Amino acid sequence: MLKVALLGAGRIGQVHAKSILANAESALVAIADVNAAAAQALAAEVGAEVRSVEAILADPAIDAVLIATSTDTHSALIERATAAGKAVLCEKPVDLSLERALACQAATAGNGAPVMIGFNRRFDPNFAALKAAFDRGEIGKGELLAITSFDPAPPPVSYVRVSGGLFRDMMIHDFDMACWIMGGAPAVVSATGSAIVDPEIGAAGDVDTAVVTLTWADGRLAVIKNSRRAGYGYDQRLELLGSGGLLSAQNVLENTVQKITTAGVSSAKPVYFFLERYMRAYEAEWSAFVTAVKAGTAMPVPLAEGVAALACAEAATRAAQSGRAAAITADMLGG
Amino acid sequence: MLKVALLGAGRIGQVHAKSILANAESALVAIADVNAAAAQALAAEVGAEVRSVEAILADPAIDAVLIATSTDTHSALIERATAAGKAVLCEKPVDLSLERALACQAATAGNGAPVMIGFNRRFDPNFAALKAAFDRGEIGKGELLAITSFDPAPPPVSYVRVSGGLFRDMMIHDFDMACWIMGGAPAVVSATGSAIVDPEIGAAGDVDTAVVTLTWADGRLAVIKNSRRAGYGYDQRLELLGSGGLLSAQNVLENTVQKITTAGVSSAKPVYFFLERYMRAYEAEWSAFVTAVKAGTAMPVPLAEGVAALACAEAATRAAQSGRAAAITADMLGG
Amino acid sequence: MLKVALLGAGRIGQVHAKSILANAESALVAIADVNAAAAQALAAEVGAEVRSVEAILADPAIDAVLIATSTDTHSALIERATAAGKAVLCEKPVDLSLERALACQAATAGNGAPVMIGFNRRFDPNFAALKAAFDRGEIGKGELLAITSFDPAPPPVSYVRVSGGLFRDMMIHDFDMACWIMGGAPAVVSATGSAIVDPEIGAAGDVDTAVVTLTWADGRLAVIKNSRRAGYGYDQRLELLGSGGLLSAQNVLENTVQKITTAGVSSAKPVYFFLERYMRAYEAEWSAFVTAVKAGTAMPVPLAEGVAALACAEAATRAAQSGRAAAITADMLGG
Amino acid sequence: MLKVALLGAGRIGQVHAKSILANAESALVAIADVNAAAAQALAAEVGAEVRSVEAILADPAIDAVLIATSTDTHSALIERATAAGKAVLCEKPVDLSLERALACQAATAGNGAPVMIGFNRRFDPNFAALKAAFDRGEIGKGELLAITSFDPAPPPVSYVRVSGGLFRDMMIHDFDMACWIMGGAPAVVSATGSAIVDPEIGAAGDVDTAVVTLTWADGRLAVIKNSRRAGYGYDQRLELLGSGGLLSAQNVLENTVQKITTAGVSSAKPVYFFLERYMRAYEAEWSAFVTAVKAGTAMPVPLAEGVAALACAEAATRAAQSGRAAAITADMLGG
Repeated sequence: MLKVALLGAGRIGQVHAKSILANAESALVAIADVNAAAAQALAAEVGAEVRSVEAILADPAIDAVLIATSTDTHSALIERATAAGKAVLCEKPVDLSLERALACQAATAGNGAPVMIGFNRRFDPNFAALKAAFDRGEIGKGELLAITSFDPAPPPVSYVRVSGGLFRDMMIHDFDMACWIMGGAPAVVSATGSAIVDPEIGAAGDVDTAVVTLTWADGRLAVIKNSRRAGYGYDQRLELLGSGGLLSAQNVLENTVQKITTAGVSSAKPVYFFLERYMRAYEAEWSAFVTAVKAGTAMPVPLAEGVAALACAEAATRAAQSGRAAAITADMLGG
Repeated sequence: MLKVALLGAGRIGQVHAKSILANAESALVAIADVNAAAAQALAAEVGAEVRSVEAILADPAIDAVLIATSTDTHSALIERATAAGKAVLCEKPVDLSLERALACQAATAGNGAPVMIGFNRRFDPNFAALKAAFDRGEIGKGELLAITSFDPAPPPVSYVRVSGGLFRDMMIHDFDMACWIMGGAPAVVSATGSAIVDPEIGAAGDVDTAVVTLTWADGRLAVIKNSRRAGYGYDQRLELLGSGGLLSAQNVLENTVQKITTAGVSSAKPVYFFLERYMRAYEAEWSAFVTAVKAGTAMPVPLAEGVAALACAEAATRAAQSGRAAAITADMLGG
Repeated sequence: MLKVALLGAGRIGQVHAKSILANAESALVAIADVNAAAAQALAAEVGAEVRSVEAILADPAIDAVLIATSTDTHSALIERATAAGKAVLCEKPVDLSLERALACQAATAGNGAPVMIGFNRRFDPNFAALKAAFDRGEIGKGELLAITSFDPAPPPVSYVRVSGGLFRDMMIHDFDMACWIMGGAPAVVSATGSAIVDPEIGAAGDVDTAVVTLTWADGRLAVIKNSRRAGYGYDQRLELLGSGGLLSAQNVLENTVQKITTAGVSSAKPVYFFLERYMRAYEAEWSAFVTAVKAGTAMPVPLAEGVAALACAEAATRAAQSGRAAAITADMLGG
Repeated sequence: MLKVALLGAGRIGQVHAKSILANAESALVAIADVNAAAAQALAAEVGAEVRSVEAILADPAIDAVLIATSTDTHSALIERATAAGKAVLCEKPVDLSLERALACQAATAGNGAPVMIGFNRRFDPNFAALKAAFDRGEIGKGELLAITSFDPAPPPVSYVRVSGGLFRDMMIHDFDMACWIMGGAPAVVSATGSAIVDPEIGAAGDVDTAVVTLTWADGRLAVIKNSRRAGYGYDQRLELLGSGGLLSAQNVLENTVQKITTAGVSSAKPVYFFLERYMRAYEAEWSAFVTAVKAGTAMPVPLAEGVAALACAEAATRAAQSGRAAAITADMLGG
């Protein structure tokens, strides 16, 4: 039984708490949050204890920590937790600063504690089935990947201001999917973005609609479309053209009912947002972490892959501003 | 918190145990089974106590029993449990004998304890969404209902011999769906069946493939197709033609991945069997029972509706044998 | 170049005229109709001559006749045309009277002229693709066929009165599809029907909604659903469960556009009626006839198969009235 | 009856000849081709006369010419034909040189003869239905358009060398679709391309896989994916995210048959190439041209829109080479 402490009792921390509880091989023993009330409420609900980060890291009975705090604390907590010998699952992104993330990667490289970054979409059964089919060679060599990733509604501008921008905050997931499926980081990133959903987002210096093209050194391509406002729900699709065919993962609909009238054929819309779509993915992510920690095998999403996604975001941000393709150099990947 | 005892620790009892545990408003306190080892194993897993049926029914602390024993014990257990003042959720069918089921209905009519029959498919989110859309009037008056219900593989002939036959054992679910959607029992039943999947099933006096037509007094129609062997999985679809359109509920597929090659477009197959397809339905069924018991409102699937489905099965069995349409008379419905 | 005369210049005759014109190996030279104005109008449009049936049959330059007159004239025209040595494509049904159709079959058996019955649906590319896949063994042995066949709107009651009833007029197509796919006529027919779309149809002694079950001697089954009013268009689907899987042919939609909004996913409805759906099938039917006549090979849909469909209709009519399954005996098939 | 001469009797000229014949309001009277045998063969097949371009343009009885010659002759033929007062439908692209196309636009601006460019995809019933739904306001303001356009197999490298490159030869269609749907030309074009399908294409200085992003002055975006080799057929899809939802046009499949086995659900693949997919579009295009010429109304696809697509191709070619976004200036549009 893996004894786990949860750092961060906010929305995403609560999601992870459920996964920890649902897993027969992990126990949630402690919760820390700078917001004492939040920590207390969640601890009461799940039967855990409220403790300080210090106390948690000092407790040899705790095997692992799940970091679900605000992004600016991730790097330091990863460093402290691994120094204390804890296995770590940290929410994405590693950091808003690539430089800081690289420093974290360097600092933790030697201490041997396993670190996994929480790119939950890799564990979605649909995306995982696509990846497995591709890895079995069902469509030959991957040539052109297309990712559609739209949120149902834009966040408040106050959030946008501290988010690090669409490329680091939202498209980071898609950069990870692209690197995961295509196998490693691209060499060049082009990016275009606009604030057409909400001019306030533009006034805050960010974009709400964007298209990014990734090129690998051998010429393979990926294109990512993001919008902060699809309206109808969470639109999360992948499509990979290979030398022998096309694989796609379609949206998950609310139900399978169809209606045919003179107005046409209608079906249910996609499920609304990430909790509806990815709850099973969060559980599978946690399960993969627990299994790897217990078996001592490689982390399913190592820290270096969290850094690679951030390098893509950094390059995309630069490319969108300059109108020029940006290279991803070896030093951006900590190599 | 509803205190619940589970009678029957076999496959379906284990399914229900999970639903009871997953529900925050019910607690599984006791388990009884003629197979002591099975009772013990499940009790250990879920943290409940093994007790005799007698002890359970005599215990005033137990609010409800879930009957998941063999079919031939259902009627008697319903009678005993309701006499003891327990709320009852009993697995389908009420009985293999319509006569016995009617006697049970008569015997329990006066004692006031709520009885619900476990027709889990009513709680499938897809079928429930179809029913809700129909009840909202989205396709006008229902005229012709078509139910497709195929199992992935036939049961052993030893099971077939004691099952009461396809109409009572398998199509009973579809009779309930038809009565539920169309609103009440049909007036006439026609039936045709063959043993073409497995001649041994024919030798045992049963059929493995069947088509049944139901006619309501006002001329509305339903047709049910059953096969014991679809091979590719569990095929569970509804389709209702109304005066203003058509509603259908399609199968649930394993995932949303599509592949296009020179061989065509391919997608995942339907989920394999009832546990994969209906686990959420079992949980929703239990939740509906708990809610109704606590609120003192009408049972979502009252005993009389379990009797109606059985009356259809009885009529279908007769019709298949005689080649003549069989009427469902008021006395077959306990009226 | 096959020289063709068209008997009947009504709606379906006009459809066939287009197919004759579109085929590079046939020429439409003469048209006959009891309605002289109709004959004249069509002849002018297609550049053919108006002639009497007598003149057409007496003209040795005419190779083939296409019979698209009213049903009660089919048998006599088949007899006269084949006696005159013409190849014949006759619209379905052969006759409203099975007895008369059998007499026609007997009368023409010896004269050697090829006769084909116009069951156009066999030539629909979707149904033909399903049949080809089944014949290639892709789902093993066929066990349970389901045919859905709904018209968009009921015909006027005046038409219903002279139509021979739903089973002979509308379901005749589906009987042919069933015999074609399953390979030969069934042994037993059960039928249920209601007039729930239009009570006037009931008052005229017919039904507008019906379910028919066919059983072959070896236990294979088929079920046909008919409705005179789907509202949303022409609903024409097939579904065949085999020992190794399921084949289905879905409807043809007006276009491939999908819209996703908060109201759900919507697509175009099925094409409206038989001309929209089956125009290509009529052309392919005519092409198959021309090819077979020129090559001297067997008729794609011989007269005997038109008789078999009519025998099913006869049995269904009887079964619906009596509530008893009706046998199809060898003498009903002219055997 | 519009009297038409066809210039060019090659593959696409033959396609157009069929459309001219199929249209009841146009007659194909003359054909010219530098390849006399090709002109002769087609003329014989369609019952037209072989004549020189000079003779055709000098003949006052000829109302319109359809230019289906090699691309390098388009501009000059447009100029000569309009100077001779003929209505012109010219195959895409206007020219491989934007400069030459702009000169053609300037030269013909004053002479009043209608010129239409043959962007056939606008007349595809699926794309036209999407455009109509969008123009009706069904998804609000268009924000992000995505076009997928893959050919089944790459052309020979000999063709690639003279094609003007993927952006001018293949993506020109998609540029037109984007300008048509979004309403006018974009302000900025970014492009990335690779030769990963066939290295010979790369050696010839072209790409076979490309992603282009278009940005309009108000921030709206479009992204176009092209591949010369989808393998499974012709993949032609549109998807438009609007402020109120998403509209998409899916591929046309060969038929509607589905098969379900233990291997999953399989359907037919998309139709193979442009003739299978767009034959109806060519007919509708011709019909729209004839209607506009006869009514004297505006050309459905005026020459200026052919120039705009070419300006996009020019900018994309430059952007792909430089890695920098390229502006589309007013002078590139002849403005």
